[in-house]
Amino acid sequence: MDNSQQPASAALVIIGNEILSGRTVDANLPYLARELNALGIPLLEARVVPDVEERIVEAVNACRARYAYVFTTGGIGPTHDDITAASISRAFGRPLLRHPEAERRLRAYYPPEKINEARLKMAEMPEGAELIDNPISTAPGFRVENVFVLAGIPRVMQAMFEGIRHRLRGGPPILSRTLTLLAPEGDVALLLAEVQEAFPSVEIGSYPFFTFDRPGTSIVFRSRDAAACEAALRRLEEAARARGIEIRNEAAAGTSGEEG
Amino acid sequence: MDNSQQPASAALVIIGNEILSGRTVDANLPYLARELNALGIPLLEARVVPDVEERIVEAVNACRARYAYVFTTGGIGPTHDDITAASISRAFGRPLLRHPEAERRLRAYYPPEKINEARLKMAEMPEGAELIDNPISTAPGFRVENVFVLAGIPRVMQAMFEGIRHRLRGGPPILSRTLTLLAPEGDVALLLAEVQEAFPSVEIGSYPFFTFDRPGTSIVFRSRDAAACEAALRRLEEAARARGIEIRNEAAAGTSGEEG
Repeated sequence: MDNSQQPASAALVIIGNEILSGRTVDANLPYLARELNALGIPLLEARVVPDVEERIVEAVNACRARYAYVFTTGGIGPTHDDITAASISRAFGRPLLRHPEAERRLRAYYPPEKINEARLKMAEMPEGAELIDNPISTAPGFRVENVFVLAGIPRVMQAMFEGIRHRLRGGPPILSRTLTLLAPEGDVALLLAEVQEAFPSVEIGSYPFFTFDRPGTSIVFRSRDAAACEAALRRLEEAARARGIEIRNEAAAGTSGEEG
Repeated sequence: MDNSQQPASAALVIIGNEILSGRTVDANLPYLARELNALGIPLLEARVVPDVEERIVEAVNACRARYAYVFTTGGIGPTHDDITAASISRAFGRPLLRHPEAERRLRAYYPPEKINEARLKMAEMPEGAELIDNPISTAPGFRVENVFVLAGIPRVMQAMFEGIRHRLRGGPPILSRTLTLLAPEGDVALLLAEVQEAFPSVEIGSYPFFTFDRPGTSIVFRSRDAAACEAALRRLEEAARARGIEIRNEAAAGTSGEEG
């Protein structure tokens, strides 16, 4: 099921060699995925790119043409390997300028002897960029059109996201319900395919697991349509019972709620 | 520094709605990143795509044209949302066939009453695919040209990777050394830029942190050239000392070793 035609979908571009080397494990994708889902903005793609301008430009341009919102994380610090602002400038064909308000904030935050060219680099951004507040460490993120440039450090990224959340326009939140069957995936796959066919507006995912060495399958129903979500779950639940498949208690009670 | 011209680089395509919804946190990227680095095959790009054939085809085709090796994780189970094999077939323009040896293994593993169309779907793969052994749960991965299709469950993916590791041809391993400075990034950024300029064959990354509320910066030097790596680290160490910047002990001793 391709959701890319639905309103207000998003992509994430994760920038940084440290993610691709395995040195740092990204924590921003799971956070943004859950927060965006709750806002009714499904995250439909993510790319991890190195600190290479050409690769950043390519990923950002591919994503901003296709999705309503693009978020980038990483590469906005003071060092030579922080090239996100320059890359976003090139992606938009806009000059890279020192933003006066960003400079003012940095000069207010750091003692005068700590202000140097490296730190002032954090005030450089594409012409016309709108600042995104950084309540943790001052150096702001920024927005250009539909691209939101955020910090890579999760605590800073999350604080920046809190400040822009109200500006994002999503659809109805994507609801998620889970049914847990104590049977391996292969036993329930054909049943699942039937239910999926009967409820095309519900995205049905199947996730195998083992508990006490017993195989089970979590079935996740996701949709903006709460009634369809519920009906699909009930259909599978009845069909599973009729075939003598054990249903785990908390799931039979219907664990419900927004994803994230 | 663009490494994409170097021999034997790799990309990873992570397939699955559960990653993009935030339900599941990917653990395969960090594992593969470290293992590939140790084999001298830098991971230069990763993409996370949903269970949508068109998106999988697009990502795999973009990556296999650009990198020596492409790995995919996820979507090779028995359920309707497992569409990786069909998508890889379409990406290569090859028919999707039931692989006789894969079918034989599945029939040997499951009792006859457990063999159904859903489980046999796990034997379907592009014409000419070569099996990748699955010592955990039998259903094999496969290789087509430079694309290696692996399971999404980390334990199974890792077991599959162990079986193909010897087939991958990398360069000299990428060495990594770290120098830890007890100074904020902005204090050392200009110094770092000088060292980076003097050692273009070394990729120098800068990662800020806080310990006991004191800001510090981990400087990571990565290169296939051990001597250059060492020389760049020593240059920065001396320059930092000359400026009275404190160096954390274990780093001054030179924490060394392959990344991963």
